[in-house]
Amino acid sequence: MPSANPAAIVADAVLGANQAFYDALNARDLDAMDALWSRISPVACIHPGWAPLTERDNVMQSFRAILGSRDTPEILCQDPQVLLWGEFALVVCFERLGEAVLAAANTFRLEEGIWRLVHHQAGPAAEGPEPDLPPPGRRQLH
Amino acid sequence: MPSANPAAIVADAVLGANQAFYDALNARDLDAMDALWSRISPVACIHPGWAPLTERDNVMQSFRAILGSRDTPEILCQDPQVLLWGEFALVVCFERLGEAVLAAANTFRLEEGIWRLVHHQAGPAAEGPEPDLPPPGRRQLH
Repeated sequence: MPSANPAAIVADAVLGANQAFYDALNARDLDAMDALWSRISPVACIHPGWAPLTERDNVMQSFRAILGSRDTPEILCQDPQVLLWGEFALVVCFERLGEAVLAAANTFRLEEGIWRLVHHQAGPAAEGPEPDLPPPGRRQLH
Repeated sequence: MPSANPAAIVADAVLGANQAFYDALNARDLDAMDALWSRISPVACIHPGWAPLTERDNVMQSFRAILGSRDTPEILCQDPQVLLWGEFALVVCFERLGEAVLAAANTFRLEEGIWRLVHHQAGPAAEGPEPDLPPPGRRQLH
């Protein structure tokens, strides 16, 4: 039988929200992306090579540009790891864009029962997931 | 008279913890760095070009290597902006290392009255602070 460990259940919910972020990116679905981000908390975003963005309108404008660009490749989220912080959670993962590999972190806040994005950051990583790591899946810390 | 705005007081405390992080880096003070990081919450760190680190021991080992390296330049934190999330707070800023500029985010959690680091991430930024921004100081959002 599947574990009923409460932390595992929470981690699964966070990982679901994290995957929804990448699904929205790859579907170029701005409405879905917009719905994932908090409307209650201040939010921030640091895209690779960009200056930090604050204010929700600025963050959404950046995703409008990214989702609307033909140059945006498919982004595969690999080896996500969840840190549970009560009403907050962090997912660190790799993002694979063809041959390029980024290291990323997505911060979520539990708002009215739903995990909402409050921060996303990604930057180049010298190495991707190690071959001996388990396949992209659901590893949970703590 | 200085403002007694409670949010401004909290933001100042977060910015103080943020500056202490850069002071510890530049002083190559591993004990000070160790004291800044949470011992209660799971922590993570993504250094420029590195894979995500989780587990406190791994994060501290990385700072031991960075602080012990002669190649580590002085790091100037510029234009920090604070997002207040209740018991959590995020500081986004630029890090200037000589000619290089990084965009960084530091996540703090209020634990027993002290803002402790739970996540640090930095990566290359194409541009630094804009000339028309106020000098490195204390801008607060929300």
